[in-house]
Amino acid sequence: MGSKHQIPTLFLIVFFLLILGCFASPRKNIRSRRPCKEMVFYFHDIIFNGKNFKNATSAIVGAPAWGNHTILANNNHFGNVVVFDDPITLDNNLHSPPVGRAQGLYIYDKKEIFTSWLAFSFVFNSTAHTGSINFAGADPLMNKTRDISVIGGTGDFFMSRGVATLMTDAFEGEVYFRLRVDIKFYECW
Amino acid sequence: MGSKHQIPTLFLIVFFLLILGCFASPRKNIRSRRPCKEMVFYFHDIIFNGKNFKNATSAIVGAPAWGNHTILANNNHFGNVVVFDDPITLDNNLHSPPVGRAQGLYIYDKKEIFTSWLAFSFVFNSTAHTGSINFAGADPLMNKTRDISVIGGTGDFFMSRGVATLMTDAFEGEVYFRLRVDIKFYECW
Amino acid sequence: MGSKHQIPTLFLIVFFLLILGCFASPRKNIRSRRPCKEMVFYFHDIIFNGKNFKNATSAIVGAPAWGNHTILANNNHFGNVVVFDDPITLDNNLHSPPVGRAQGLYIYDKKEIFTSWLAFSFVFNSTAHTGSINFAGADPLMNKTRDISVIGGTGDFFMSRGVATLMTDAFEGEVYFRLRVDIKFYECW
Repeated sequence: MGSKHQIPTLFLIVFFLLILGCFASPRKNIRSRRPCKEMVFYFHDIIFNGKNFKNATSAIVGAPAWGNHTILANNNHFGNVVVFDDPITLDNNLHSPPVGRAQGLYIYDKKEIFTSWLAFSFVFNSTAHTGSINFAGADPLMNKTRDISVIGGTGDFFMSRGVATLMTDAFEGEVYFRLRVDIKFYECW
Repeated sequence: MGSKHQIPTLFLIVFFLLILGCFASPRKNIRSRRPCKEMVFYFHDIIFNGKNFKNATSAIVGAPAWGNHTILANNNHFGNVVVFDDPITLDNNLHSPPVGRAQGLYIYDKKEIFTSWLAFSFVFNSTAHTGSINFAGADPLMNKTRDISVIGGTGDFFMSRGVATLMTDAFEGEVYFRLRVDIKFYECW
Repeated sequence: MGSKHQIPTLFLIVFFLLILGCFASPRKNIRSRRPCKEMVFYFHDIIFNGKNFKNATSAIVGAPAWGNHTILANNNHFGNVVVFDDPITLDNNLHSPPVGRAQGLYIYDKKEIFTSWLAFSFVFNSTAHTGSINFAGADPLMNKTRDISVIGGTGDFFMSRGVATLMTDAFEGEVYFRLRVDIKFYECW
């Protein structure tokens, strides 16, 4: 007898809990520090120095009172602002076919040592990826690895957030450098 | 009798719901691609050209070695940095009463074609809206539509995230342009 | 008989699952406007004016056509871009031991009144904190308090988001100012 009534009761409970389940939620899962997506890219920066216009991918556009727009300033380039449109490649070869462009700006922001701050986007428009990833953060470039934030994304990277680890993969004087970027997304939509 | 079978049934249900609870995760709801809020605005940019100080809403503040701060540079304005304080309107009329200000900076960041990168805020302080919306992203302005990220907000837009679609609604030479911004919020608090 | 014992069992299960639902779920919690972490810091900005290189922590690096890189421009400094590396302290004393550096840029972006826009990071590397907090937003600095966005973080502040309230704690002419920053994190990982 009891059991007769209990079957509907059970269903009621299941139903109730399903609804609860719908509103409640798994943040914990999502908030795990296991990335939901990982990608590795390289990008290549060739600074305009007055003589390399054809190959240059970036240019000094701001400088302190003691600087100019052709040569990076004294005092660890403190105050230099650089705008860039750098090719992104899948490996560390500048001449590999670019898969996108890294576009934005960086600044040198300390008198005493080299350190930088970046705000830029990875822009993709290929069969592999369409959309953009937006980044911002401090880049203390004398450290082996530096973490910046993935602050948003569009297209294939819609609403993404994460952390990108930068490594200086190569540099040649003050004209060329190559960064390796390990992107870990922790919010994927 | 009934009860004999029901105890395992109950455990089964509990077990099932625990698993459900772990995986079900309503994130899906929250992470749906249906915006939780949508807004459309226009903003209007009048670049200082040496002669229009009274009407100008923006000024060139950075330039490459081959440029200056009165005229946008050759090579698709590559390297120009512009600071702006542009009126926001609800329709496409520059002379409509502004509902807020778009404030921040944009850069031109490619030698070969016109393309831009933006970091700015919409600042509202009216009966309709109080607070700010913060944006960042690449603006390949020759495309009909371009998506940038809503990276945060304050006041009425507290902790918001989303995607904003930019459309060039009008431009007049190199002095005036008007952008239409369709904002879709996917995280509302 | 069975049924007599089962009703309490069912309630127990419901109760248990409700509790589970409360903790499992945390979206609702997380979206509460109760911060998951709060911090207060001060940072100190000393602008290079041509004579104070040793003490200066920031420098004018962009200016409108009517400005230069040694003196903040007329018209409420509209168009000035400043790069900074400012000490962060726990109290309002410039000479307290710095606990980190505030690094990035600010711009003055309105002709008619003083108003600013900021994009920067707090960089920590001490026993107390390791990692960075990234900020962006409008700073209408004539207001007593202004809210900007915490757009991301790394290290101890991994994936953080929130709102930071800025207050001008002191300023001396156009050379020194001190900001108090009340950071409220609403997304903690």
